[in-house]
Amino acid sequence: MTMQQTPLLLHTLLSRGAHVAPHEAIVNATANGVHRQTYATTSRRARQLANALNDAGIGIGDRVGSFLWNHHRHLEMYQGVTSMGAVLHTINIRLGEDDLEYIINHGGAEIIVVDEDLLPSLEPLAARLTGVRHWIVSSESGEWQSSLPSAVDYETFIGTQSAEFEWPEFDENAPLGLCYTSGTTGRPKGVMYTHRSTYLHSFAEAMTDTMSMSATDSVCAIVPMFHAMAWGLPFTAMMLGAKQVFPNRFMTPSELLDLMVNEEVTLAGGVPTIWQGVRGAIEAQPERWDLSKLDRVLCGGSAPPPSLLRWFRDALDVEMIHCWGMTETNPLAVVSRQVAKRAHRKLDLNAQFKNMGKTGLLVPGLEMKIVDDDFEPLAHDGDVFGDLLVKGPWIAGSYYQDPQPEKFHDGWLMTGDIARIDAEEYLIITDRSKDVIKSGGEWISSVDLENHICALEGVAQAAVVAQPHPKWDERPVALVVRADASSMTAEDVLQHCGAAFAKWQIPDEILFVDQLALTTTGKIDKKTLRARLAAQSYVLPDLR
Amino acid sequence: MTMQQTPLLLHTLLSRGAHVAPHEAIVNATANGVHRQTYATTSRRARQLANALNDAGIGIGDRVGSFLWNHHRHLEMYQGVTSMGAVLHTINIRLGEDDLEYIINHGGAEIIVVDEDLLPSLEPLAARLTGVRHWIVSSESGEWQSSLPSAVDYETFIGTQSAEFEWPEFDENAPLGLCYTSGTTGRPKGVMYTHRSTYLHSFAEAMTDTMSMSATDSVCAIVPMFHAMAWGLPFTAMMLGAKQVFPNRFMTPSELLDLMVNEEVTLAGGVPTIWQGVRGAIEAQPERWDLSKLDRVLCGGSAPPPSLLRWFRDALDVEMIHCWGMTETNPLAVVSRQVAKRAHRKLDLNAQFKNMGKTGLLVPGLEMKIVDDDFEPLAHDGDVFGDLLVKGPWIAGSYYQDPQPEKFHDGWLMTGDIARIDAEEYLIITDRSKDVIKSGGEWISSVDLENHICALEGVAQAAVVAQPHPKWDERPVALVVRADASSMTAEDVLQHCGAAFAKWQIPDEILFVDQLALTTTGKIDKKTLRARLAAQSYVLPDLR
Repeated sequence: MTMQQTPLLLHTLLSRGAHVAPHEAIVNATANGVHRQTYATTSRRARQLANALNDAGIGIGDRVGSFLWNHHRHLEMYQGVTSMGAVLHTINIRLGEDDLEYIINHGGAEIIVVDEDLLPSLEPLAARLTGVRHWIVSSESGEWQSSLPSAVDYETFIGTQSAEFEWPEFDENAPLGLCYTSGTTGRPKGVMYTHRSTYLHSFAEAMTDTMSMSATDSVCAIVPMFHAMAWGLPFTAMMLGAKQVFPNRFMTPSELLDLMVNEEVTLAGGVPTIWQGVRGAIEAQPERWDLSKLDRVLCGGSAPPPSLLRWFRDALDVEMIHCWGMTETNPLAVVSRQVAKRAHRKLDLNAQFKNMGKTGLLVPGLEMKIVDDDFEPLAHDGDVFGDLLVKGPWIAGSYYQDPQPEKFHDGWLMTGDIARIDAEEYLIITDRSKDVIKSGGEWISSVDLENHICALEGVAQAAVVAQPHPKWDERPVALVVRADASSMTAEDVLQHCGAAFAKWQIPDEILFVDQLALTTTGKIDKKTLRARLAAQSYVLPDLR
Repeated sequence: MTMQQTPLLLHTLLSRGAHVAPHEAIVNATANGVHRQTYATTSRRARQLANALNDAGIGIGDRVGSFLWNHHRHLEMYQGVTSMGAVLHTINIRLGEDDLEYIINHGGAEIIVVDEDLLPSLEPLAARLTGVRHWIVSSESGEWQSSLPSAVDYETFIGTQSAEFEWPEFDENAPLGLCYTSGTTGRPKGVMYTHRSTYLHSFAEAMTDTMSMSATDSVCAIVPMFHAMAWGLPFTAMMLGAKQVFPNRFMTPSELLDLMVNEEVTLAGGVPTIWQGVRGAIEAQPERWDLSKLDRVLCGGSAPPPSLLRWFRDALDVEMIHCWGMTETNPLAVVSRQVAKRAHRKLDLNAQFKNMGKTGLLVPGLEMKIVDDDFEPLAHDGDVFGDLLVKGPWIAGSYYQDPQPEKFHDGWLMTGDIARIDAEEYLIITDRSKDVIKSGGEWISSVDLENHICALEGVAQAAVVAQPHPKWDERPVALVVRADASSMTAEDVLQHCGAAFAKWQIPDEILFVDQLALTTTGKIDKKTLRARLAAQSYVLPDLR
């Protein structure tokens, strides 16, 4: 070998923040103002944590669980657990008991760190989590009580440990982090990230053409740290030495906005429902927050309506970067920027936003294709649609101890999305394959209808789902949340749809609802919406 | 394995340009205006080239040489030769006969592509290059004559070939490109880049905090494509689908400036002597060029004087990005940006330029240390200096078929540089270890003196080298090139030095010269300067 065979281990990236920016801040909201510590302190505490875990018998490849909000101790686990060669299982704090029991036992965590306010979710389960040997409690007050067997306070656990820990060397394909898919169908499935995959993903996120993340940013991961490892943002920010700001459990729009303003956040990431809420809060109090420092927001998890992308530019002069990925893709795979190509510089704003409304361009290093039912590749003409498959060094090749071969084909991940690819190589996701509406042998895109309805003045949110139909198999029904002051009618919505869609594509019913059911990661939960509709548990529309 | 084991092969990155930006332009100067082709065409021709090479018996691991200026055919070789799994040896066109014979025979190229105007450099050697089976000539006119045995025109060679070629899969540690160090001491040494190393390097170059390269850039590699593969710029630009502009053999400052203005170049890379020349041309004709599109210039190869960094910002509003690396580091290893950290945003311009004058911050993924003679690590206090060692996945671990174990230590590359590292983790290279001046047991940094002298009004260039001294072992001598209109005296320079340096650090002599000897890659050739001084071949100063 002529080039050095240095393995791609995450500790070389994560150590860099404390080297180049030792005084830069890690900030999180607490019940009493913010908690603030430096990268140097974070790195020191991550090493103390590693020593404590080592003493508790955790070695390379062993699993350590987190059941935490987004805050500095969670970040210390991100650094310490992975750098020592153990595996961080970031457990979704919003799961129900059955799923929690399943994923904790399946993941095999021997130690779990849990936030004091989340204790009630785990305590009833503890007896069934037979693999967990130690419970560590993260508390703001240091005063807590728990029925968890011999639980120890986090500060006690790491407090007396040395801050020296030499990160070990091992194979770059060693596991690093375990995340379970939110599992809207079937049991949650585990994706085991490796050092190699997350290393490459961190490099990809630091590119100008993806997120443009920089050491000069103040980065706020609103997306939960249990959700595809907060899209990798804490890793990338730590590699660069960027300031990091975490909302902890204080997730109302006004709490988020206060934090972002006070900490001069320049780049923040969250799901569309978060940004819809932020928009609502700002529209209600336009003068309250000075967001002049904010430069870019990342929107992923599900597609933001184009009207939301536009609002962020028009109202805040902020670029909403539409990111697509899944837990299985680490997750960043596709990005849509306002000016993604040199030729786009000359486009007018409307044309730029038309591109932004597409799912985006593939991140360098990955491959994608759309295929028909026989796995034959389809044309990139923007019209034909098929199953989306992706491939690359940060894409899952199997699920953790749960192979699910039907989710993979010839080394490619089957995303479960129906998509088109246009001549400019833009991916355009039409629908999740389970959400697409099959009417009379034709497919109707729920996403296209939702985007169109959301663009109507007075609409806050919209979801379009299939309902069984005796003649057409399925027909679309739209559930719409009105903006506060709006008195819009179903006729308004239907008329608006009629201007853009064929008659057979227009929803059979428009139902106004107060809110839409969300999944544990904040996406609109269409499975639940379909079930509620089928059970006729929605009140009939008042205006039809 | 839970994540896909996709090998890090360069073809996945290089194919992306033609996918996402098929109509974007590859432009190069010719004797009659510019040649312009698209990424789609480049990619098609790279596949034709691969088929032609295949027909000529070139397979995975075989070496193909280029003896070319920077232009579209060289880029086709960058894509085609590497993607097919062969090895591109980019031969330094400015080497003398002995070095050329050595590196071509040592590198083992079986086919060499040569520019018609460079034929006279190779023809006399051909009989001694027994491993070369085919000569391919790149010509603008298609009319050329050569004594090279059975030479074929490049267009004839690829012309009838199919544009279909499926890039093969192989191990990511397979070799990809061969570059020889410029070899100011001893024989040239070969560095064999691998797919893995150049893949990672391309990702690193696309980061916001290194070069901020983007698909929206128009990138001009002035640095020769034979010099550490033009710093990897063509690979990174092709991955992103950025426009690329090549100067070919038209390298005078005004030719470069015309090309950059006409092709709306936003990012250009070259050695300090190039940028000194560009500055001179602009100062002579301040109104001639509209460089409003130019945003950043990369300066590497040797350190730019701080006064030059400042001039680019003040005169052109362009950020000069100081990059450090060597052929052995692929080459990008250290970068200095005007605002490299969040805290630097609040610094005034003078403080920002003080940081830019340092060598810079280490690129994510690499490690560095300074050590004493016993290889003990030294403090990062900005004062103590020692030998600089670097490590990482795109750093050479040995030379190609020429191990040179004394250049490596415990898996680290010994760079041959003497450096300090300050408390902000800035690398500050004091000198090449062979250029540092050892006077009376103390070291004098030639670089510090040069930077200081260059800041004096009326100085165009300066070099400080050691001359033997009976009492002090060595003493510094400064060679200064005056700016056109300047009538500065040696006294002026000495007085200027006296304001910043101790008496014993000030050069014993100031010699005014018309120009400084350069290496084949455009660096100031201190070895030659020292030899000329020792031979008393410089005219004595006219003013002392």
